[in-house]
Amino acid sequence: MRAEIEAAGERIAGHIRTTPIIHLEENIWGLDGRLTLKLELLQHTGSFKPRGAFNRVLSNAVPPAGLIAASGGNHGIAVAYVGQQLGQRAEIFVPEACSPVKIERLRSYGARVTIVGATYADALEASQGRAQQTGALVIHAYDQPEVISGQSTLASEFERQAPDLDSVLIAVGGGGLIAGAAAWFEGRVRLVGVEPASAPSMARALQAGEPVDADVGGIAVDSLGARRAGTLAFSLVKQYVHGVVLVSDEDIRRSQRMLWSDLRVLAEPGGATALAALLSGAYCPRPGERVGVVICGGNTDPGMLA
Amino acid sequence: MRAEIEAAGERIAGHIRTTPIIHLEENIWGLDGRLTLKLELLQHTGSFKPRGAFNRVLSNAVPPAGLIAASGGNHGIAVAYVGQQLGQRAEIFVPEACSPVKIERLRSYGARVTIVGATYADALEASQGRAQQTGALVIHAYDQPEVISGQSTLASEFERQAPDLDSVLIAVGGGGLIAGAAAWFEGRVRLVGVEPASAPSMARALQAGEPVDADVGGIAVDSLGARRAGTLAFSLVKQYVHGVVLVSDEDIRRSQRMLWSDLRVLAEPGGATALAALLSGAYCPRPGERVGVVICGGNTDPGMLA
Repeated sequence: MRAEIEAAGERIAGHIRTTPIIHLEENIWGLDGRLTLKLELLQHTGSFKPRGAFNRVLSNAVPPAGLIAASGGNHGIAVAYVGQQLGQRAEIFVPEACSPVKIERLRSYGARVTIVGATYADALEASQGRAQQTGALVIHAYDQPEVISGQSTLASEFERQAPDLDSVLIAVGGGGLIAGAAAWFEGRVRLVGVEPASAPSMARALQAGEPVDADVGGIAVDSLGARRAGTLAFSLVKQYVHGVVLVSDEDIRRSQRMLWSDLRVLAEPGGATALAALLSGAYCPRPGERVGVVICGGNTDPGMLA
Repeated sequence: MRAEIEAAGERIAGHIRTTPIIHLEENIWGLDGRLTLKLELLQHTGSFKPRGAFNRVLSNAVPPAGLIAASGGNHGIAVAYVGQQLGQRAEIFVPEACSPVKIERLRSYGARVTIVGATYADALEASQGRAQQTGALVIHAYDQPEVISGQSTLASEFERQAPDLDSVLIAVGGGGLIAGAAAWFEGRVRLVGVEPASAPSMARALQAGEPVDADVGGIAVDSLGARRAGTLAFSLVKQYVHGVVLVSDEDIRRSQRMLWSDLRVLAEPGGATALAALLSGAYCPRPGERVGVVICGGNTDPGMLA
């Protein structure tokens, strides 16, 4: 897949920000490892999602009906942004769990927004019916090859910026981002997925040997709330990911607080989930281990930390 | 001063984060220039101030009474942090204008805090009396050679990261940071100071030909509220700075909003002041001009943007 990922990188280059990294001091938060954060929340639209969305759209002919997507929020925002940037109509289906901040942003990019059902899975089903009617180009939130290759560009960029990482921690919803990283690294670094215990779709899939439905809820449900891991994502995770660890909602909230108080980084719950695995001890690096942590989204209401 | 600045960089290296930069896309916010932001709000304590404070303290013998400083907030926080890190007592004088967020942080580093007077100038006077009693090492917020050389390391680091800048915009309070940049760049880039119209101490100094008292207030008074520009700072600014432009409190607030909505960077008013000069048109880059903008602090209550 390396050639595909490099092609994706060239395809989306003019549309995507190279997001910065920061090396943190030894022993920060009492941790043994040496941490490097990838500040992907500075990406357009406040999450990594435009990488996959641009790659999917720029790899296909767009029909007159434009673009359609279902999303917990961030993917929809990315597709709406892609539509605005490329002059295509975009129709986005989100569940009632989508935060007001995200719905407002969706509308600000000119997308037609439908709020339907309790979870992402309900919104996905509704969007599929609508896509059959209109013929719009479907951009899946995580389970399409072009979407995954687009997300891979985060991993290739991170490796270019920090070539000596031993391990990389990535939050998992449907699995698109970690699958992209798996496809890029192919085992060269230890990839660890981090899920909220309240939304453990990839952990359940690994237990069952295939994607299965999981109960999803909790603090990060609006970004990591996919009920079932993607099929493509699962196969890449199974092949190349070292393991998936679980963190509590309280761990995630604490991670958000530490990111703000010690770094002035304001991440959304899903964006703080990977770091929560270190702070909670769910993942313990060896002394001196060089650990990359992806801070993947910041679409939250700043007031929630106040 | 180049050798002094390089020595300062080596002296403080283990104590300071190399803060990231981000190159923004052309035409962001409708601007002609090509913007590179220096995200110095990710520095320890949430502002650039530890650079100067560490350099001052590490260049001198610390007496038993420890460290003493007056500050609008950020410098005091930095001195308190330096004290904590180096095992020295720290006594900090702040005016009533100091925000609750900053006072809380000062205390979290174990500093003894005295709140006195309406403005920074009052707190400075009180701290000088106390320093004479105790014999503590005085760390001035902006008007000491070691403090200015420490702040220069921000400029040297920025130039290393982005060697092709045509101009650099820096917010001005007492002038320590821009003086540090002036000493480093020595005219190699176009340095522009940005002050709130509500706290124009450097603009008044340039008009008068020497530092004079200015009325100070407004939205950024807790970080840019020095009543009188520093003497050392003024001489460097006069020699090497292209000019100082003024922005309104509303420009600053808008800059804070744009940084959050388009970048997920949550700056304090003083931290958003340099960018405000571009958004307001107070500074208009030429087409293609490579403009560096220092986002120098993030010590604010996230709720203020909510």
